[in-house]
Amino acid sequence: MNTRPSLDQVGLSTGKKARLHRILHEYGVGNGTAIFLPYDHGLEHGPRDFSGHPEGGDPRNILRLALEGGFNGIALQIGLARKFYWEYAGEVPLVLKLNGKTDIPSPADPLSPVNATVEEAVRLGADAVGYTLYVGSPAQERDFAQYLRVREDAERFGMPLIVWSYPRGAAIDAKGGRDSFYAVDYAARTASELGADMVKVNFPQPGKQDGVPAAYRREFSAQQAIEAVVMSANRSLLLVSGGEQAGDEAMLEKARQSMEAGATGLIFGRNVFQRGHDDSLRLIAQLREILAKYPS
Amino acid sequence: MNTRPSLDQVGLSTGKKARLHRILHEYGVGNGTAIFLPYDHGLEHGPRDFSGHPEGGDPRNILRLALEGGFNGIALQIGLARKFYWEYAGEVPLVLKLNGKTDIPSPADPLSPVNATVEEAVRLGADAVGYTLYVGSPAQERDFAQYLRVREDAERFGMPLIVWSYPRGAAIDAKGGRDSFYAVDYAARTASELGADMVKVNFPQPGKQDGVPAAYRREFSAQQAIEAVVMSANRSLLLVSGGEQAGDEAMLEKARQSMEAGATGLIFGRNVFQRGHDDSLRLIAQLREILAKYPS
Amino acid sequence: MNTRPSLDQVGLSTGKKARLHRILHEYGVGNGTAIFLPYDHGLEHGPRDFSGHPEGGDPRNILRLALEGGFNGIALQIGLARKFYWEYAGEVPLVLKLNGKTDIPSPADPLSPVNATVEEAVRLGADAVGYTLYVGSPAQERDFAQYLRVREDAERFGMPLIVWSYPRGAAIDAKGGRDSFYAVDYAARTASELGADMVKVNFPQPGKQDGVPAAYRREFSAQQAIEAVVMSANRSLLLVSGGEQAGDEAMLEKARQSMEAGATGLIFGRNVFQRGHDDSLRLIAQLREILAKYPS
Amino acid sequence: MNTRPSLDQVGLSTGKKARLHRILHEYGVGNGTAIFLPYDHGLEHGPRDFSGHPEGGDPRNILRLALEGGFNGIALQIGLARKFYWEYAGEVPLVLKLNGKTDIPSPADPLSPVNATVEEAVRLGADAVGYTLYVGSPAQERDFAQYLRVREDAERFGMPLIVWSYPRGAAIDAKGGRDSFYAVDYAARTASELGADMVKVNFPQPGKQDGVPAAYRREFSAQQAIEAVVMSANRSLLLVSGGEQAGDEAMLEKARQSMEAGATGLIFGRNVFQRGHDDSLRLIAQLREILAKYPS
Amino acid sequence: MNTRPSLDQVGLSTGKKARLHRILHEYGVGNGTAIFLPYDHGLEHGPRDFSGHPEGGDPRNILRLALEGGFNGIALQIGLARKFYWEYAGEVPLVLKLNGKTDIPSPADPLSPVNATVEEAVRLGADAVGYTLYVGSPAQERDFAQYLRVREDAERFGMPLIVWSYPRGAAIDAKGGRDSFYAVDYAARTASELGADMVKVNFPQPGKQDGVPAAYRREFSAQQAIEAVVMSANRSLLLVSGGEQAGDEAMLEKARQSMEAGATGLIFGRNVFQRGHDDSLRLIAQLREILAKYPS
Repeated sequence: MNTRPSLDQVGLSTGKKARLHRILHEYGVGNGTAIFLPYDHGLEHGPRDFSGHPEGGDPRNILRLALEGGFNGIALQIGLARKFYWEYAGEVPLVLKLNGKTDIPSPADPLSPVNATVEEAVRLGADAVGYTLYVGSPAQERDFAQYLRVREDAERFGMPLIVWSYPRGAAIDAKGGRDSFYAVDYAARTASELGADMVKVNFPQPGKQDGVPAAYRREFSAQQAIEAVVMSANRSLLLVSGGEQAGDEAMLEKARQSMEAGATGLIFGRNVFQRGHDDSLRLIAQLREILAKYPS
Repeated sequence: MNTRPSLDQVGLSTGKKARLHRILHEYGVGNGTAIFLPYDHGLEHGPRDFSGHPEGGDPRNILRLALEGGFNGIALQIGLARKFYWEYAGEVPLVLKLNGKTDIPSPADPLSPVNATVEEAVRLGADAVGYTLYVGSPAQERDFAQYLRVREDAERFGMPLIVWSYPRGAAIDAKGGRDSFYAVDYAARTASELGADMVKVNFPQPGKQDGVPAAYRREFSAQQAIEAVVMSANRSLLLVSGGEQAGDEAMLEKARQSMEAGATGLIFGRNVFQRGHDDSLRLIAQLREILAKYPS
Repeated sequence: MNTRPSLDQVGLSTGKKARLHRILHEYGVGNGTAIFLPYDHGLEHGPRDFSGHPEGGDPRNILRLALEGGFNGIALQIGLARKFYWEYAGEVPLVLKLNGKTDIPSPADPLSPVNATVEEAVRLGADAVGYTLYVGSPAQERDFAQYLRVREDAERFGMPLIVWSYPRGAAIDAKGGRDSFYAVDYAARTASELGADMVKVNFPQPGKQDGVPAAYRREFSAQQAIEAVVMSANRSLLLVSGGEQAGDEAMLEKARQSMEAGATGLIFGRNVFQRGHDDSLRLIAQLREILAKYPS
Repeated sequence: MNTRPSLDQVGLSTGKKARLHRILHEYGVGNGTAIFLPYDHGLEHGPRDFSGHPEGGDPRNILRLALEGGFNGIALQIGLARKFYWEYAGEVPLVLKLNGKTDIPSPADPLSPVNATVEEAVRLGADAVGYTLYVGSPAQERDFAQYLRVREDAERFGMPLIVWSYPRGAAIDAKGGRDSFYAVDYAARTASELGADMVKVNFPQPGKQDGVPAAYRREFSAQQAIEAVVMSANRSLLLVSGGEQAGDEAMLEKARQSMEAGATGLIFGRNVFQRGHDDSLRLIAQLREILAKYPS
Repeated sequence: MNTRPSLDQVGLSTGKKARLHRILHEYGVGNGTAIFLPYDHGLEHGPRDFSGHPEGGDPRNILRLALEGGFNGIALQIGLARKFYWEYAGEVPLVLKLNGKTDIPSPADPLSPVNATVEEAVRLGADAVGYTLYVGSPAQERDFAQYLRVREDAERFGMPLIVWSYPRGAAIDAKGGRDSFYAVDYAARTASELGADMVKVNFPQPGKQDGVPAAYRREFSAQQAIEAVVMSANRSLLLVSGGEQAGDEAMLEKARQSMEAGATGLIFGRNVFQRGHDDSLRLIAQLREILAKYPS
């Protein structure tokens, strides 16, 4: 088990520390952990993600859920932030997601284009910004270039930068796939080397070994894998994604393992809003119970 | 008695609303009221203000007081913000005071020069900025010009702007002085006309009538005067200053009258730190009791 | 009697014509005339102007009056525009007043400092901007310099520029005063020479002849004087101010004379809001009756 | 006796800490103390300061002295830095003095104009920049404005900013003069409030009490005064100036008192170069012996 | 044997000389030689490089190693520099590596994207910046373009530029490979022609002659090869890389040959941190012994 560092041990500027302190200690469970509600599926996957749960397509319901569920933040694209956040401004922290794309073309070289700026996030009173980095994509030259500009602005404005660090592209597919321990571990380290303040990864699957480097072609428990990923992220605080909807007990177990490994928190989207409001709140209550056991 | 408007009724952009919500509802009493701790006396008056209370000269003690006293914000000049706020970042909101001056020269035409920018306030994670406007000063041309740039930046970054609206200069002295009902009322309205989100004034003294316009040469109770000032500030939320140290009961009475009149809160500096730490906390507790009676 | 020119005869750019058309033909009487409601007295004179009419101190009442009275526009300082115009946006045209000052110091060299920009007026959806030029002030070098920047921005953004053209300063006082035919005539011409799209003047008083140049030391009727002023303004459309509150019949007579002389309209502030709401509406109805007789 | 804080306790950014560490720990005595050699007298006073010591007028001799004497830095104006520092680049740290003036005019409102930029200091490999602030000068509006730009650049480049904090002007002369305890204390605090990383002051003279505020009109020992000044500077590290040449024993005593009070070091110009090379080295050796007793 | 030039013989500006002097004479052995510790393997190869040596994955251990081992500098990517260097700021010089990439995709046309700026290096107090140039890559047009901007900034800020000059790409593979004498020699010269202040190359292998130009298809000793490479680099000081971990004696021999040939120093990463801490320190001590024999 790793010990999660406190905010004054991870090399933050004053502004980044102020904003992360608010997110981690003034909202949610308030003990230095976090659970975020990402809500950009309407762009990334289209309205099909709300199929069967039409109320999940209305941003007002999701903002209300974020507030009632005691989330530490909600991640929105600029359009929804501009038109829906005002009513909840300051009541639940805003993470402005700065890039995003549709999933209609199937790119061999994925890249998520920027569609909002850090300055706009400041203007909206956001407490963090999000950027999706496609680690391993052949488009990494353009990706790193646009990421650099985002990171510089984030430094300039003292805005915490959360990197959605996603292994993607043909080379990743050929080396164990996007959820392999190798891929997730490398993604966490890449975000850390490039200056993420927080990094969001999927839970690693050490069993996926086809084509991965020798160091990963051994037996690892899930717990060993997630602990290594926390180490690779070092001072970039780790958020573990719920990913596609799975069984509740499996999810809660992953959450426990992540927190035990020294993660800072969770980021759960479809798992939360692809169910009824009350059912969502019940799940969140269970997740909060887990977080409460890991004060920093 | 005026009714204090809530934050969604005063014409705020999303970012200003987010930040003011945090200040007014996530810190302090948390009911939409506020008590601020200004701490720029070392610049405005020099270390003599700490005479007899040397612990008041150490910014660490004052920040600790702001935290322990449950203040809604501490107002600092850039030097102290840069070197001392990191330890408390996010734990107590920061109001970066953007201008200030020494009191060594006795200017006939006072003007408080800008020594920090709104962008720097953003970088430090501040939730508001402060600007001293010398209403009635012959230097108003330069004052308005530098204020314009501050206000524009504050709009651009969604940063609440608190105007220390101080009647000053020879003309004010000739028209009843800086604390007359006339002067304070005009100062409140001026800040409102020029776009302050909050305005700090001294408590008006309706008895000071020498040289004031006819409309103010009548009998007004203190309560009538402060109510009129709140009206003049209209959607600029009013903060009433404690001014120089007076008797505690007199101060508490002013605080009650201000809140009854629809003020949003109080801003107490010397009254608070020119006494021992425990004595300060006792006074603050009394002030918080008053604020608790005025939820928005 | 001059014939008032139509909008396609006064050398307007497309954007200026579009905005002035809205003001003159889509609002108010709708026949090319205008009556404006200026409301910056809280800054220029202080709250004393609302003495005896406290409801006049609340910007909400004045905006409602502008709407119900069918005004062609309301002139506000930036603070009130930002916090109060949203509720009425588009329902009554906004004239953003770009400069202003308190009347506390009595300067020998008056200058009205800029406290908002044309770009901000665009951002707020204003249909014109206003600038006070103190014609004859010893400060004219700085005044012209800041006016130049305003005018350049107004050209760049296609924003009609209304000049409050006020004779002021010691030299004016020595040459017949601020309302002499000489002074008003010179002020109208100055605004025209410097590129005003509209110019606001006080009604000239040809009887004030002490110290005026020889050409004005003759007998002129009020009608002759106002006709000459309209000529001096040439393609800068003339607005005549109601000035301080006078008897209603006298005001209506001035209004008739102005329109007869070819003025485009009227700008009435204290005459309108320093009375009860219903009384105000009665006066405005009378003014509209006059305007209706002068279609362009 | 105050305890001098170490570099990781005074709120420094990474770049400022790196450069100050080099100055304080990699050069000179190397124990966190410093002795600087300022050499801008040729601009500030003219060549008369080299009268009787013509070799002191040759910058090569002074740079050699800085190196052989084991100084922690030499402060130069841009002209000498550009033409003389190359030979010694990196061997002795450079403090680029960014403003300066001649003493030919006797201004009532002194201001030291900027004649080099922080970027130029970076380009030359300087490890700090210096700025003279005339505390109490009627010109403080322009002084603060130009200081703001310097400070912002210093933050941007991670360059330590040393403020020569000098009480000056008519108001200072009327309140005890430039070396009074009051004036020096206020100057130290002003530099701290405005964000100096180091502040250079003259040794305070508590006996100068004519016209100083009440708090300073008591008996203070030299030791009490310098300790209070160190407190006022709080996290701005204090450098005590040697001022005009005095007797050696008096100077050494002041140096001891300063270090005992928690100062970081000394800045000695004329006292050092207005004597022969060997004599200078002997004096410096004595000063270094004092510094060696105060490791941080 | 070449004679290594001293710093005042290689055409450096003042700032570059100051910083290189510090690196070469104030740290490490201090005799004009250098040994650098590069630590960007987490990005370039992923966490697999720390497999078997998990303590090597924690940047704190590597920084401690750099300090205890007496390195002349540590090369970090921006993320680690921002979050870990503060604790060691100024104690060991920082080389900010400005570009980097993952090794997940196998590009036919390698290019290392920029993810930090020279200005950021200045801000962090770095004493040099690093840039990886893929000599021979089909992507050289974009590579040179981005290198140009880096070099210009380095000139502007007086920041020494270290070029990781790596022969790469299909054409290189077809002409003897990346370590051939031909390829390394050409890489050294290319960096020199393009303005590198220091150039890092692998030790040339004159035996690799398949496909190399005629001039290199002869017998050369290792010593002859490395001497030629130093000549090709001319006034760009040469650093020889340790490359993948080899036997210790072979490495020490290469180090001796390099220094004998006039190289300035060594840059050893995996060879150093892919072993235990004490073992690392033993190896470094041996390398320092070699460097000590080559004072400039």
